[in-house]
Amino acid sequence: MKFETLRWNRGSLELLDQRLLPKNIVYLNLKSADEVAKAIREMAVRGAPAIGCAAAFGIAVEASRLKHLEKTAFHAALLDAFKILAESRPTAVNLFWALEMMKSAIDFEKDPGSIALDLSEKAGAIFKEDIEANLEMGRHGASLIPEKCSILTYCNAGALATAGHGTALGVIRSAHRQGKAISVHACETRPLLQGARLTAWELAMEKIPATLICDNMAGYLMNKGEIDMVIVGADRVAANGDTANKIGTYTMAVLAKRHAIPFVVACPVSTIDPHTPTGNEIPIEERAGSEVRGYGETDWAAEGIRIRNPAFDVTPAELVAALVTEKGVIQAPDEAKISALLAF
Amino acid sequence: MKFETLRWNRGSLELLDQRLLPKNIVYLNLKSADEVAKAIREMAVRGAPAIGCAAAFGIAVEASRLKHLEKTAFHAALLDAFKILAESRPTAVNLFWALEMMKSAIDFEKDPGSIALDLSEKAGAIFKEDIEANLEMGRHGASLIPEKCSILTYCNAGALATAGHGTALGVIRSAHRQGKAISVHACETRPLLQGARLTAWELAMEKIPATLICDNMAGYLMNKGEIDMVIVGADRVAANGDTANKIGTYTMAVLAKRHAIPFVVACPVSTIDPHTPTGNEIPIEERAGSEVRGYGETDWAAEGIRIRNPAFDVTPAELVAALVTEKGVIQAPDEAKISALLAF
Repeated sequence: MKFETLRWNRGSLELLDQRLLPKNIVYLNLKSADEVAKAIREMAVRGAPAIGCAAAFGIAVEASRLKHLEKTAFHAALLDAFKILAESRPTAVNLFWALEMMKSAIDFEKDPGSIALDLSEKAGAIFKEDIEANLEMGRHGASLIPEKCSILTYCNAGALATAGHGTALGVIRSAHRQGKAISVHACETRPLLQGARLTAWELAMEKIPATLICDNMAGYLMNKGEIDMVIVGADRVAANGDTANKIGTYTMAVLAKRHAIPFVVACPVSTIDPHTPTGNEIPIEERAGSEVRGYGETDWAAEGIRIRNPAFDVTPAELVAALVTEKGVIQAPDEAKISALLAF
Repeated sequence: MKFETLRWNRGSLELLDQRLLPKNIVYLNLKSADEVAKAIREMAVRGAPAIGCAAAFGIAVEASRLKHLEKTAFHAALLDAFKILAESRPTAVNLFWALEMMKSAIDFEKDPGSIALDLSEKAGAIFKEDIEANLEMGRHGASLIPEKCSILTYCNAGALATAGHGTALGVIRSAHRQGKAISVHACETRPLLQGARLTAWELAMEKIPATLICDNMAGYLMNKGEIDMVIVGADRVAANGDTANKIGTYTMAVLAKRHAIPFVVACPVSTIDPHTPTGNEIPIEERAGSEVRGYGETDWAAEGIRIRNPAFDVTPAELVAALVTEKGVIQAPDEAKISALLAF
């Protein structure tokens, strides 16, 4: 990797500001849970696994910042930090999963300094395990990809969406490194253009043959026979296999079904939420209309029009051909298979 | 209407430059077929019926400009103008239809001055008939719309895409004027954002309740039960009812089918091309990649990525619930019904 999505640097979290990519490579230096929550909310970091890692480091940063407080005040402030981070974004379950992991690492009998040390170690472990999970996922997922394959991907489920390597893009990366003749179509992914800015950037850097399209061009290419497989990441997988992903992913799944193209979801097990029975119970974040009115400083929409901006949608399990995790691949995922995978 | 898409002004064509909308209302003053062809190619004017009208005026403008030439030179130059205009854009059939109409109005026995006069009258008649066709289409189409209806539309098939009133948006406008409780979702329509800039502008001006979404959000809203009907315009309808429309329309039709939502196409009879047997024979324009890399002066895509930019796609007749024309409505259009309509 020629960049790091996030890195720990002596008590602070250095975070690549993805809003400025690909033009500018700027690392934010975050020194409190508040600052990390703001970075998550405003999408300086995004992608379910990366949000999980950032939140874990957010707790570690806060513990390090407050470790000179006396015990009771330290505990109270730390619990506040958990609350602030849990409220930063609603859909990706990795955020809540990572915060649970961090909470379980606290031994309240210990002194604040020791707790802070334990938390920085735990955050580091979550980060390291995410990279390892991505590499395993890449290995499992690559086995699904034929020697020559034109893959469509959506949004960014790459190294930038994770601790490194990536989920959907990790599978693509692994298949490419195995010498398979992979070409990729990246959908730009309105409104925040993670496909055009981030996925295109990662693919160009990796020298994987890649083509950028607008989201509304995928159906045309599928109909022309130019797409062999769709691979996307996920923000939350319900117990029955319904998956929440970036807005527009559902449309890709419907189009893939019509054209008999396999639709594959790649995510770590930490993205599967056994406490969410189906996609209907996944909270869908609605973001500010200003994101849809234009992009960045450019505003093109007519005055006086109302705007909707749901950030995610749900793809029902029936449209998912395979779910790729670090524990292996499930074909046609359903509740029983997912439950067995989690118990494995 | 608070604007005119195009107007004839003593030998020149005044054309609202749609690339600058909604921020700036600027009329181009076009004095030759070359200038009109450039305006069509660069999409200062767009929308199949508006392109047809512009091309007709392009011939009238050229005839007027050249009417002092001697007969043979005038004829040769006029035929050149037909060629230049015919090459301006490939997909919308109204362009070729309008040029045929103009050609049929030429009596080569007459002197250049008389021919120029005939051509300006013919262009005016094509323009006037387009508005009348839109109003008829609006009347026929509105009968399909229930008293309360949430309609999704795509790209711009409004007054700006025609001589006035509009095709798909004309139907919406007519239903709204009849007092029906219409609300509209307008898809922004990447890459040139005709939905966000033009449709949103027309709807806001008309005070029709309207919401702007990104193209990739339509599936989410359909799945939530928030859309009752889809109405779009067309750029060319083949003899079998396959329709070419702005890129992304096919995806809307596939989504509508999945959610059992009627997908309606509104266009004048001049958009139906009996000489194109099926959608497979409709030429699909591929435009410059720069349109996809960003918008206007803003460029956000990563360097070094290849780009595709098909401007249209084809929706097969099987996905079209109804075809609305000025001659009436065809339910489930097919070759026999279309042929009967054309003969009517």
